[in-house]
Amino acid sequence: MRINNDQIKASNKELLDVHKEDLVQLAKKHKNLEQIIDTIAKYNIAIPSWALGAGGTRFGRFGFGGEPGNLEQKLDDVAVINDLTGSANAVSLHIPWDIPGNAEAIKAKAHLLGLNFDAMNSNTFQDQQDQEHSYKFGSLCHTDKVVRDQAVAHNKEVIDQGVALGSKSLTVWLADGSNFPGQLNFRRAFENTLASLKEIYAYLPADWKMFIEYKPYEPNFYSMVIQDWGTSHMLAKDLGEKAFTLVDLGHHLPNTNIEQIVATLVTKGMLGGFHFNDSKYGDDDLSVGVIKPYQLFLIFNELVYGFDNNKANNPIPAWMIDASHNLKDPLEDLIQSVEAIETAYAKALLIDQKALEKAQLANDVVASQRILQDAFQSDVKIILAEARLRNGAALDPIEAYRKMDVRKELINERGMNNAATGL
Amino acid sequence: MRINNDQIKASNKELLDVHKEDLVQLAKKHKNLEQIIDTIAKYNIAIPSWALGAGGTRFGRFGFGGEPGNLEQKLDDVAVINDLTGSANAVSLHIPWDIPGNAEAIKAKAHLLGLNFDAMNSNTFQDQQDQEHSYKFGSLCHTDKVVRDQAVAHNKEVIDQGVALGSKSLTVWLADGSNFPGQLNFRRAFENTLASLKEIYAYLPADWKMFIEYKPYEPNFYSMVIQDWGTSHMLAKDLGEKAFTLVDLGHHLPNTNIEQIVATLVTKGMLGGFHFNDSKYGDDDLSVGVIKPYQLFLIFNELVYGFDNNKANNPIPAWMIDASHNLKDPLEDLIQSVEAIETAYAKALLIDQKALEKAQLANDVVASQRILQDAFQSDVKIILAEARLRNGAALDPIEAYRKMDVRKELINERGMNNAATGL
Amino acid sequence: MRINNDQIKASNKELLDVHKEDLVQLAKKHKNLEQIIDTIAKYNIAIPSWALGAGGTRFGRFGFGGEPGNLEQKLDDVAVINDLTGSANAVSLHIPWDIPGNAEAIKAKAHLLGLNFDAMNSNTFQDQQDQEHSYKFGSLCHTDKVVRDQAVAHNKEVIDQGVALGSKSLTVWLADGSNFPGQLNFRRAFENTLASLKEIYAYLPADWKMFIEYKPYEPNFYSMVIQDWGTSHMLAKDLGEKAFTLVDLGHHLPNTNIEQIVATLVTKGMLGGFHFNDSKYGDDDLSVGVIKPYQLFLIFNELVYGFDNNKANNPIPAWMIDASHNLKDPLEDLIQSVEAIETAYAKALLIDQKALEKAQLANDVVASQRILQDAFQSDVKIILAEARLRNGAALDPIEAYRKMDVRKELINERGMNNAATGL
Amino acid sequence: MRINNDQIKASNKELLDVHKEDLVQLAKKHKNLEQIIDTIAKYNIAIPSWALGAGGTRFGRFGFGGEPGNLEQKLDDVAVINDLTGSANAVSLHIPWDIPGNAEAIKAKAHLLGLNFDAMNSNTFQDQQDQEHSYKFGSLCHTDKVVRDQAVAHNKEVIDQGVALGSKSLTVWLADGSNFPGQLNFRRAFENTLASLKEIYAYLPADWKMFIEYKPYEPNFYSMVIQDWGTSHMLAKDLGEKAFTLVDLGHHLPNTNIEQIVATLVTKGMLGGFHFNDSKYGDDDLSVGVIKPYQLFLIFNELVYGFDNNKANNPIPAWMIDASHNLKDPLEDLIQSVEAIETAYAKALLIDQKALEKAQLANDVVASQRILQDAFQSDVKIILAEARLRNGAALDPIEAYRKMDVRKELINERGMNNAATGL
Repeated sequence: MRINNDQIKASNKELLDVHKEDLVQLAKKHKNLEQIIDTIAKYNIAIPSWALGAGGTRFGRFGFGGEPGNLEQKLDDVAVINDLTGSANAVSLHIPWDIPGNAEAIKAKAHLLGLNFDAMNSNTFQDQQDQEHSYKFGSLCHTDKVVRDQAVAHNKEVIDQGVALGSKSLTVWLADGSNFPGQLNFRRAFENTLASLKEIYAYLPADWKMFIEYKPYEPNFYSMVIQDWGTSHMLAKDLGEKAFTLVDLGHHLPNTNIEQIVATLVTKGMLGGFHFNDSKYGDDDLSVGVIKPYQLFLIFNELVYGFDNNKANNPIPAWMIDASHNLKDPLEDLIQSVEAIETAYAKALLIDQKALEKAQLANDVVASQRILQDAFQSDVKIILAEARLRNGAALDPIEAYRKMDVRKELINERGMNNAATGL
Repeated sequence: MRINNDQIKASNKELLDVHKEDLVQLAKKHKNLEQIIDTIAKYNIAIPSWALGAGGTRFGRFGFGGEPGNLEQKLDDVAVINDLTGSANAVSLHIPWDIPGNAEAIKAKAHLLGLNFDAMNSNTFQDQQDQEHSYKFGSLCHTDKVVRDQAVAHNKEVIDQGVALGSKSLTVWLADGSNFPGQLNFRRAFENTLASLKEIYAYLPADWKMFIEYKPYEPNFYSMVIQDWGTSHMLAKDLGEKAFTLVDLGHHLPNTNIEQIVATLVTKGMLGGFHFNDSKYGDDDLSVGVIKPYQLFLIFNELVYGFDNNKANNPIPAWMIDASHNLKDPLEDLIQSVEAIETAYAKALLIDQKALEKAQLANDVVASQRILQDAFQSDVKIILAEARLRNGAALDPIEAYRKMDVRKELINERGMNNAATGL
Repeated sequence: MRINNDQIKASNKELLDVHKEDLVQLAKKHKNLEQIIDTIAKYNIAIPSWALGAGGTRFGRFGFGGEPGNLEQKLDDVAVINDLTGSANAVSLHIPWDIPGNAEAIKAKAHLLGLNFDAMNSNTFQDQQDQEHSYKFGSLCHTDKVVRDQAVAHNKEVIDQGVALGSKSLTVWLADGSNFPGQLNFRRAFENTLASLKEIYAYLPADWKMFIEYKPYEPNFYSMVIQDWGTSHMLAKDLGEKAFTLVDLGHHLPNTNIEQIVATLVTKGMLGGFHFNDSKYGDDDLSVGVIKPYQLFLIFNELVYGFDNNKANNPIPAWMIDASHNLKDPLEDLIQSVEAIETAYAKALLIDQKALEKAQLANDVVASQRILQDAFQSDVKIILAEARLRNGAALDPIEAYRKMDVRKELINERGMNNAATGL
Repeated sequence: MRINNDQIKASNKELLDVHKEDLVQLAKKHKNLEQIIDTIAKYNIAIPSWALGAGGTRFGRFGFGGEPGNLEQKLDDVAVINDLTGSANAVSLHIPWDIPGNAEAIKAKAHLLGLNFDAMNSNTFQDQQDQEHSYKFGSLCHTDKVVRDQAVAHNKEVIDQGVALGSKSLTVWLADGSNFPGQLNFRRAFENTLASLKEIYAYLPADWKMFIEYKPYEPNFYSMVIQDWGTSHMLAKDLGEKAFTLVDLGHHLPNTNIEQIVATLVTKGMLGGFHFNDSKYGDDDLSVGVIKPYQLFLIFNELVYGFDNNKANNPIPAWMIDASHNLKDPLEDLIQSVEAIETAYAKALLIDQKALEKAQLANDVVASQRILQDAFQSDVKIILAEARLRNGAALDPIEAYRKMDVRKELINERGMNNAATGL
């Protein structure tokens, strides 16, 4: 299914008058409103292909009906999100969950839908049916060279597929690690991983980037080979200038000051991208902004400041959602995540950076706090709505999605028992 | 397969002389050695039926070959552990993973193997194939009474099955909770859970106990209905004197002082039992004692003291392992867990409680610490070995298991692709 | 010094027109706006006497000048906060930091300033100069009865002083615990504490309440006698119906779901009061709302719902700030804290509870989240300003405070080197 | 006071026969026992001068009597520890707490006592009486250059004093950070810190090293400029080959895998040294090994392996204790810490590294775990005692210390109310 302009317009009709009036009122408050609306309107977040179906936990998986059964249908779903939000014009693929049978056809379809291909994701944390060697004891870090070679070869294939689709980057996330003290020699694991990454890096096209994800733990684990940003950064420096660190918000120990990590990476030009999600306890992969919206805002404050003062030439990061949907309709969840990211971004754009700098240099702590809080406490719903309107999208995407009965339509098309590939 | 006495004796033969000499040396050091050996020799830990097969994570499951395919075979496996360690004469069943077709026959078989049935475990955290209502949004706490009724009925069936097997207790663990703020009304969920538990409690036979497990979080969750021992204790008090709190070592927030919780529960006569395991980050279900052996020792210190001074008539707790085995042979892992528990127990028995009390009353902190550390730093391998010897078990169970090629034998019997029921 | 009406009016003058226009706009959006403004206008938070001076860390203490040197001056400072915010008409005293020389005179002065006396706080976590026995090894839990007796006597004196001032409650917070495993017998400590509390409880006047605070750890500690809400609740139940649990937001292990604890306590009618503050790592005593404003909002959601549905007859909780001010002017900090609490409260009042209940009963997770988020993302600055205006307070209290040069005035009055009693 | 040989011999007399017999028995078990005893006998840990007096918390400080009142007396105290343990021949000074009036005389006295000077520690986290600019808002990171210059100058003076004493390294620990979001510009703070460190680094003598400590948080803080090893490592790389990362065991977020950090730093030749202590919740500065002795053992496993396979030419790390003593006699506490470190080291030396490597390469997880656990569960008290004996020290240092009534003697010499400089 495809959402057409008339549907959008119809859904906006009732809300439009009030919205316009609200906008007039808001413009009185903020001198740079136009610029903020424009920035938000141009902003896009990549949708991960694996988040379009129901996620699972170790206890089970509850399907939603109408899940996309192949890559074409996944693109259709991303297009739905993009049509409604005007801010999701890219998809991030995961191989082998989304091997394009015919890359040219897929590329053409994406083009038609107004979508492009963001970072490619390799997968050496699961064994595939026909796989020769198991990743039970690791992949790029494995003690056995044949396993490492297999994992390196897989990453090269992912690059090949990405090249065919027009992607420009590879994200490497590893579940390599150990469950018990003693199982793994940390140094050997680190060195094997570095050597494997070097082979993959050497295969990268000239205009590609490599993003190295880090994570302190998985359930049941005792150690992870790339446990923190420090390790990721060390590997990236050893690889070369196309390698960067990728920050997944859920991949941190309790209480980590993530906004400072982001600031440090931008300072050094080493921030490659984001996996947005939220969490209360561990890597919960909840919808963005549902637990710690203020932390997300503080991160965007660092980004706004960082790219206004980009002395180290940090490239524009890859913006991706990485969440899992056990209870919600995945499309509704992704729409809520897109909105939450843009909410944080818009609020960060409201920060009076000059006043903040002045207060900081004067060590006026009360004023500094107030400047941040004033921006955070502002209601930016109208800004987001206007940005969507200008992109031809829905003033209220969730409402529109429900009124259009999109899920029912998808179930009609695809049936109740389709299951999307992914976790 | 069954391990026979001759095999055990043969495996002990080589080690026996050195062991006997070591024992003589050790006896010189500890006046109460005989008593400690005796206590350890009589101690038994229940093996959970669901830990006899390979566990899984969200990324996959790596089979071991020779996994038990039915309840009879699970009993055989527990018998192997018990034959080798002399300390695992009970099994804890999980319904519906282990529904006994013929309870009488199962009971007879268990009797023959020298095993009995510890606490029964119900399961309302997974949907079963033929289940009418889904537990997607909870079970005992569900907003819809028909779902709660179904979950209550299941628990009653579990009691029935336990009665038929001679079990005397029911452990209730719930994955009821929510993924997002707002999803659940905490109070309604608590009250529904309490009402449901009351129905189950009313069904308990007179000589049964109910153990209420608590847990702060599951992956992907925002809240759990029974999030901590305080909530479990509140529910148990509301239910009546057959209800107790069960402590799973992995079910705590970072840095929790678990030994103090244990002491508090014993003080009030409310400690129902344990699920032993270990963890570094969350509920990792690793083999007992692999991460925090000193914490385990401190817990056993509370238990030794607590039951030597059992003023509140706390019943002897149910001792169970609750671990998951993704990388190790499950039988080897369980043997290592049994050893780790007995190691902590034997060390706690070495504590000079009188000297400790004296130092505590004098606020001699240095001496108090030293008394605990002296016991903990002692090597109790010989004590465990002697206790096993007296039980007709193996001096070195892991070594014996490997020499006897048990796993190979099990694969021969059951094949490579048998998969045990469980997570 | 005292802030007079004319000063307030002058400070409001410039802001008034815009405010009035904003209010008109806002009224279009919210049908129940008047009711919310009214609720906020009537809401008051107690100011802790110990937060009026500069706080300290183990590294030092940076004075602000003009700190209050005695209880009279502390009342003056609270009056400043109350005059500016219209929401701080009570003070919570800490004995022996604030022993009133002449209770009648103090009471009269407070009355004149429009202030009353909220919960009294005892202190057995510090040794006072003339104290016979040291609390080095605990107070109410101490192994030695003479120390416990001294601590009990101190609490009784605090009650006496509270009675003289018109207070109606006692908050007990203990730093009792241990630094090393083995130092303390958990059970003896618990039982000693309970026995000591019983003596204090017996001394409570008929119309008084006792609030029992809990805390998992202090720096350098291994255990705390009252480590969590479960222990506090157990003690309160053992004491009687005048005993309640007090929640200090900073007194929790990482990732604790505090809003659920609040809901559970309200469910059982056991919530006595709050110590508001915020923290990123431990008990950081930062200004309210600076780190986790969404968590604070979720707590207020439980309170709004809880007291709209107060089936267990929970008394209205004592609302207190408990923060420490190392870098900010304490009065500015407290004003920011008052505003943050009211912000969370006003947002919680905006939640459409009927719609939320409907969504919850239908397990419509997306809608539930949206209802909460809509309320949280709303800008309530105008509501707070209007509530202040109706109370004769300042539209922008921080701005007014700075324009009136209050701190300068206080320094003129009291000098630069006055140091308030407290930590 | 000074402990003489005869006192040591007298204290050992009673224990000697049993010890000798135990040693004979132990030698039968371990082929490489002699080598392990030798390694332990040669091992030395530096005592921090600030740990010789009673530590304090924000609630107070409990003196012990006989505390050292000046640097000379501190050296005497270290000599007591060294005489009793034979493993503490160095002291780590903290400026300005220990400014040597006459460096030559101090050096001569130390020489006489058999002591030398380990890393010097600067202090810009406290304001000194006569200090021109306050560190209230930071030191090396301060927004104001005059403050940074003052802090840099202080570090240079510390180097000068270290040179005069024969020290060869400077440890920089900063409490620079912020209490509130917005207070600090992370990037400016990082860049100011780096620039300041560069000035200090440039002043280092050719044969000196600089150790950069990291820490995620202080009580009351929101951010620390050097929050983790990754930041410390980044700074060290920017400074040059004399700069290294120093690991304080208490300076980590909950659940951090510290042993892996140690392994990573050794792999890259970047591990500068250790501050040993233990903690349950935060930076508790408890005596070494009282909470997580197994973690300490795992760290020593990395060190033993790391320096047996020192491919990156990591220099031998500086070994220091950094603990605080609120309840114990500081000398007893330090003796217990020295013992705990040596216990972990001796156990790590017992690991069969060849067998471990074999098991790791075969992914035999059960065997790997068993090899570590076998070593850890071994009793090494006799090894430590024998190492001490060979160094002319006490078989049981705590017992000897108490029998010799050292504290009483110190009180006689120095009085009850002496207070050592330090926190």
